[in-house]
Amino acid sequence: MNQLNYKKTQYNEPFISQRADPYVTRDDEGRYLFTASVPAYDEIILRRSETLDGLKDSAEKTIWKKHDKGIMSQHIWAPEIHKVFGEWYIYFAASDVDDIWALRPYVLHCKGSDPMTDEWEECGQMQRCDEDEFSFNDFSLDMTVFENKGHWYAIWAEKVNIGKKISNLYIAEMESATKLKTPQTLLTAPDFDWERIGFWVNEGPGIIRHNGKIFMTYSASSTGVCYAVGLLSISEDDEILNPHAWTKSRLPVLSTDMNMGILGPGHNSFTTITENDGSETDVVIYHARQYDEIEGDPLYDPNRHAYRMKVLWDKYGCPIFDIHNNF
Amino acid sequence: MNQLNYKKTQYNEPFISQRADPYVTRDDEGRYLFTASVPAYDEIILRRSETLDGLKDSAEKTIWKKHDKGIMSQHIWAPEIHKVFGEWYIYFAASDVDDIWALRPYVLHCKGSDPMTDEWEECGQMQRCDEDEFSFNDFSLDMTVFENKGHWYAIWAEKVNIGKKISNLYIAEMESATKLKTPQTLLTAPDFDWERIGFWVNEGPGIIRHNGKIFMTYSASSTGVCYAVGLLSISEDDEILNPHAWTKSRLPVLSTDMNMGILGPGHNSFTTITENDGSETDVVIYHARQYDEIEGDPLYDPNRHAYRMKVLWDKYGCPIFDIHNNF
Repeated sequence: MNQLNYKKTQYNEPFISQRADPYVTRDDEGRYLFTASVPAYDEIILRRSETLDGLKDSAEKTIWKKHDKGIMSQHIWAPEIHKVFGEWYIYFAASDVDDIWALRPYVLHCKGSDPMTDEWEECGQMQRCDEDEFSFNDFSLDMTVFENKGHWYAIWAEKVNIGKKISNLYIAEMESATKLKTPQTLLTAPDFDWERIGFWVNEGPGIIRHNGKIFMTYSASSTGVCYAVGLLSISEDDEILNPHAWTKSRLPVLSTDMNMGILGPGHNSFTTITENDGSETDVVIYHARQYDEIEGDPLYDPNRHAYRMKVLWDKYGCPIFDIHNNF
Repeated sequence: MNQLNYKKTQYNEPFISQRADPYVTRDDEGRYLFTASVPAYDEIILRRSETLDGLKDSAEKTIWKKHDKGIMSQHIWAPEIHKVFGEWYIYFAASDVDDIWALRPYVLHCKGSDPMTDEWEECGQMQRCDEDEFSFNDFSLDMTVFENKGHWYAIWAEKVNIGKKISNLYIAEMESATKLKTPQTLLTAPDFDWERIGFWVNEGPGIIRHNGKIFMTYSASSTGVCYAVGLLSISEDDEILNPHAWTKSRLPVLSTDMNMGILGPGHNSFTTITENDGSETDVVIYHARQYDEIEGDPLYDPNRHAYRMKVLWDKYGCPIFDIHNNF
């Protein structure tokens, strides 16, 4: 492990070590559930805790392991656990040991109400709607889902173009937890310089709501020091499937801070903590490295750690992501 | 020729018959230049006239013919003549007789100052900038160019995806008349239902300016009765290469009118006429069919005719396209 430029600061002590694409949500009892990519990319793990702090040291349960061959046998990436239409599902990406870049989104379903103890079953690949001839034809991953006014939506990353490819983010309404209801709509492409470093990438969508608005963070550029978080927003009353109803921020909202020792922050999720006075504070869970001089392919360097940061809100109702608010 | 549902109205008398993708511009002396796709898709023609009316019957000169084989030997489509950086150029799309869907944008240059009488030379394929790994990799055509505040921009259609493809519109700044200065930026994709009939298409961009705003019309869906014209706009002071600085209209601004006998209007350009009182009126030149029951591939049906329509402006400064204003 090469940590030539490792710098210890009060802000870059990992929340959970060697867990990338960290995803945290709360169940109906307010308990925290955690899942993430593990460095070997070979299984899906869950942790549960009464408190956010408790996730750090709570026991980790493997709820699913990759297949030996065929689909879902390689690159088990970025699981997210969601309660959709009243039941627990995990969305994750995987490829085939014989076709390791054939990433597609897959779904697991919990047969009971307790995701830690009840059995999980495979639902296969996420299905596009019958009229959709385009979705999941190519490298596609990082599916997240959210509900708005009784409708469920999925957002995912998918690559287009010939040769070197461009990763865009797409949105569609969901018919069920495992099938889309509408054809894909292109939500955001790598438009700006800071989204085009190394690779042209928009991926890792995460949803947070505030004062009647829906915000979507996403990660841009290659997964190195240039990896950064961008932001889209829309009123919850607006037309969610109209990409032109969303506003895209011109600049990233979170990026590398060498002084803080937070390198390549991205692929975040959102949760809340309950303060002593009973109020709820928004928290972003994201991953970053403590160094950027990596030997070999950064994808197989295990030290993307999960961090957490309080999200503040400015007077315009926009989120503030500031590494000083790591805790 | 099948004209089962041909309906003669005062509005669907062609301005110029059997000329698709009509392009009209005015030279420095105010004369009109006309070019278009011819039904055989085998040559590039020019007409010139002192008046717009005069284009209808003016002599047509073939200024370039397709090659026998190799690039530029098939599907000579949608030429546009522009004075760029002070000289005359023609942008057109073409494929190869041995690879007939390998459409790419090509450029011709007029060696003198008179496009009707001076010699034209080939400049080869339009070149992307050196850092751009994406443009013109796939089916790409319908390049138009425009100037704003001393900078030249190109907009073109290019397809992405595997199998059935999606045609988007891209924009880049130009370094010269034949080479781009910046990598591509995705300007608009087929987002709405009316852009996705038959094929998911945005193509045929056309630029018109009014009161400090730049408007881009484009054509959407398959080239049948569903073909329709959409609209984007931006302030001329805004960041032209930022797609989020453009506003996209939710609905088409021009579409089929069966009663008027105007079917599948699209792929337009803009010019002006000088009224008797000396004022200038904006005019859109577009193509349409008079019937929709076509035998065989619509692409090889010769009866897309050029029409012309006065463009009115509403109190918000937005263009009005109304077939009642055909003349």
